[in-house]
Amino acid sequence: MPGFLKVKTAAEVLSILDGIEPLLPETVSLALSCGRRLASDITAAEPVPHFARSTVDGYAVRARDTFGASESLPALLERSGEVVMGEAAGHSVSPGRAVEVPTGGMLPEGADAVVMVEYTSVLDNTTIEITRPAAPGENVLNTGDDIAPGAALFRKGAMLRPQDVGVLAALGIADVEVFRVARVALISTGDEIVPVQTRPLPPGKVRDINSFTLAGQIESTGARIGLRERASDRLEDLVRVCRDALVDHDAIVLSGGSSVGTRDYTTRVLAGLPESELLVHGVAIRPGKPTIFGRTGRVLFWGLPGQPVSALITCRAFVLPSLQKLQGKMEAEFTHAGTLGATLNRQIPSVHGRTDYVPVCLSRGSGGVTTASPIFGKSGAIGILARADGYVVIPEHVEGLDSGTEVSVFLF
Amino acid sequence: MPGFLKVKTAAEVLSILDGIEPLLPETVSLALSCGRRLASDITAAEPVPHFARSTVDGYAVRARDTFGASESLPALLERSGEVVMGEAAGHSVSPGRAVEVPTGGMLPEGADAVVMVEYTSVLDNTTIEITRPAAPGENVLNTGDDIAPGAALFRKGAMLRPQDVGVLAALGIADVEVFRVARVALISTGDEIVPVQTRPLPPGKVRDINSFTLAGQIESTGARIGLRERASDRLEDLVRVCRDALVDHDAIVLSGGSSVGTRDYTTRVLAGLPESELLVHGVAIRPGKPTIFGRTGRVLFWGLPGQPVSALITCRAFVLPSLQKLQGKMEAEFTHAGTLGATLNRQIPSVHGRTDYVPVCLSRGSGGVTTASPIFGKSGAIGILARADGYVVIPEHVEGLDSGTEVSVFLF
Repeated sequence: MPGFLKVKTAAEVLSILDGIEPLLPETVSLALSCGRRLASDITAAEPVPHFARSTVDGYAVRARDTFGASESLPALLERSGEVVMGEAAGHSVSPGRAVEVPTGGMLPEGADAVVMVEYTSVLDNTTIEITRPAAPGENVLNTGDDIAPGAALFRKGAMLRPQDVGVLAALGIADVEVFRVARVALISTGDEIVPVQTRPLPPGKVRDINSFTLAGQIESTGARIGLRERASDRLEDLVRVCRDALVDHDAIVLSGGSSVGTRDYTTRVLAGLPESELLVHGVAIRPGKPTIFGRTGRVLFWGLPGQPVSALITCRAFVLPSLQKLQGKMEAEFTHAGTLGATLNRQIPSVHGRTDYVPVCLSRGSGGVTTASPIFGKSGAIGILARADGYVVIPEHVEGLDSGTEVSVFLF
Repeated sequence: MPGFLKVKTAAEVLSILDGIEPLLPETVSLALSCGRRLASDITAAEPVPHFARSTVDGYAVRARDTFGASESLPALLERSGEVVMGEAAGHSVSPGRAVEVPTGGMLPEGADAVVMVEYTSVLDNTTIEITRPAAPGENVLNTGDDIAPGAALFRKGAMLRPQDVGVLAALGIADVEVFRVARVALISTGDEIVPVQTRPLPPGKVRDINSFTLAGQIESTGARIGLRERASDRLEDLVRVCRDALVDHDAIVLSGGSSVGTRDYTTRVLAGLPESELLVHGVAIRPGKPTIFGRTGRVLFWGLPGQPVSALITCRAFVLPSLQKLQGKMEAEFTHAGTLGATLNRQIPSVHGRTDYVPVCLSRGSGGVTTASPIFGKSGAIGILARADGYVVIPEHVEGLDSGTEVSVFLF
């Protein structure tokens, strides 16, 4: 294991994460597949709909029998039966005839269009009037019109949204092969960290914040938190806790202890684990520079700064993309809940070669313009994040942003 | 119960939903509170941090002892001990002295600033050199600097994000009072609906799509699906299934059977339930006009169109806001995963007085401009939604959008 690596840029870290292989696939029932990623491409094995359907309530006809029909000169057709919803059409449509059909009902043989009920009137038991012509195919969804057999629908690695699950349901795919979700061990280190219920706080102690903020973010990817523990900064304690976690976790996320101060134990913890490899030792970002990434066998190992804002930002920037890769995503990329365009209301300084993540508050000014106000605060402040609506990313090749710049705000 | 109400606008429906009272509060442990809504305002009962802390590795000093220090004329201070992380500072800083302190360590009594270790050098066992002056308060996070005691932090109804949970952790709030999540009964009706695993499909039948697409959306609000059932279009069957669901659900979402055709059973189902009240019978939107909303006692009752695209759009537009109200949100409003600005690449027609929801595909053109292409399709097509990245909303007072218009795309 190399003792120390050069600080990497955010882009270099993501390209290292791109090399993460997904976990093994598993088969889940369709009802449990939403939010999961497909382990193989999906093509349509059958057409949807699998029979020609009416898209309106009306009369199935041969379109040519309605040509020229108008209010003043309606076409007269013979009523010959009714299609019952959910059943095969029992009647066929021969020249001069019309069969009543409900929305979604099966188009009878011989018919090639449906006239909406609004343009018909019943004259007597056997005859209807049609006051508007129908073009061939009008108000009909033909076999395979929605999804053609053999259509390429979803690529391996795609995350199933509710509507995608609906498409699989339409095709009769009751079980689906997806990548397994990651199981994450979350460890807060630091001799100053005490449990949340500690009250009053002894001098010098702080409550464990990171295990809550990181768990919430990690679970948003669908990953599960297995182990959740506080550990002292003693090397042997940390190594023992991590060794135990290797047994049934896919990633270990340690927060605290990774600053380049006197207590930089995190790399030594990694070195104390089997088959370990240090891949990232420091990232050119603010906040979050002392971030560490490595592996121990197939298990990912993250060392995040202990400071809550830094831990949260680096988790979003790097840990979440790494978990998404484990869970089958094709590329490691920065993900976010959504973005909103806004105008900066003051300058944000930055430095060439460093990526900055700056929390902002949003407000809607006159004229409907959304304004983003950067929140600068002393390092260590968690309160900042509770006030922030999102953050602005200043890429490494940009030296600060001027007041008045249009920015994309990544929403928290 | 009134037999038939005037079609309402989307805004009128949301204002009716605004009257929904939240479910009862319950107390959950902090680790389970992410995504839940607060049942009461939260103010800070104590300061964060609760002791003055250093934000860097360095030496705690009296700022005035460093005034005028420079590379060429450093200040010389006597080293008098070290603050240990997580412990009370044992040494105080008297004039001419400096105490070593780690990032996050407690500021010793007498000190009012910290000099970063980079601007110091150790001369011998007892003396350090300081090459840069420190201003009072520099590199110090004072008691309450992050969160002041009594600060108003969160309002009743606010949804707790990961960082908000972190703030509660910092304050030692180990249990939190939140509104209960809604339990929803999901019922797909229609004689044509068969289970997803049915293969081959008998003529005239279609597989149950809505119970999958609606469940995925409903669960995205944190609500849970209790009952999940298909029911035939027979009135007595539907009434029986709904009556059973009333016992332990907060909302019933029925899809299918609510078009104004021959099988408009949904309002009759509602009429057959105890203490029922029809509040919305038709909404001026496309798709989704035949949407029905009412209540039976305290339980919400939704009748959505059976057509999958209509069911999904009306669920997003109205059912999700109603569930969020049950779960403690203060206002019923249209919610979405995020928005993206894009330029329409063709005209979308609409009609004054109607709100249109139009699925679009996004693509990134030359110059980084994102283009939104509307997907028009025949009614009944679920495949459209699998291709769509989001949708554009055309408000009721707008008559269509021209090609080239800048639009906000609501991401699926």
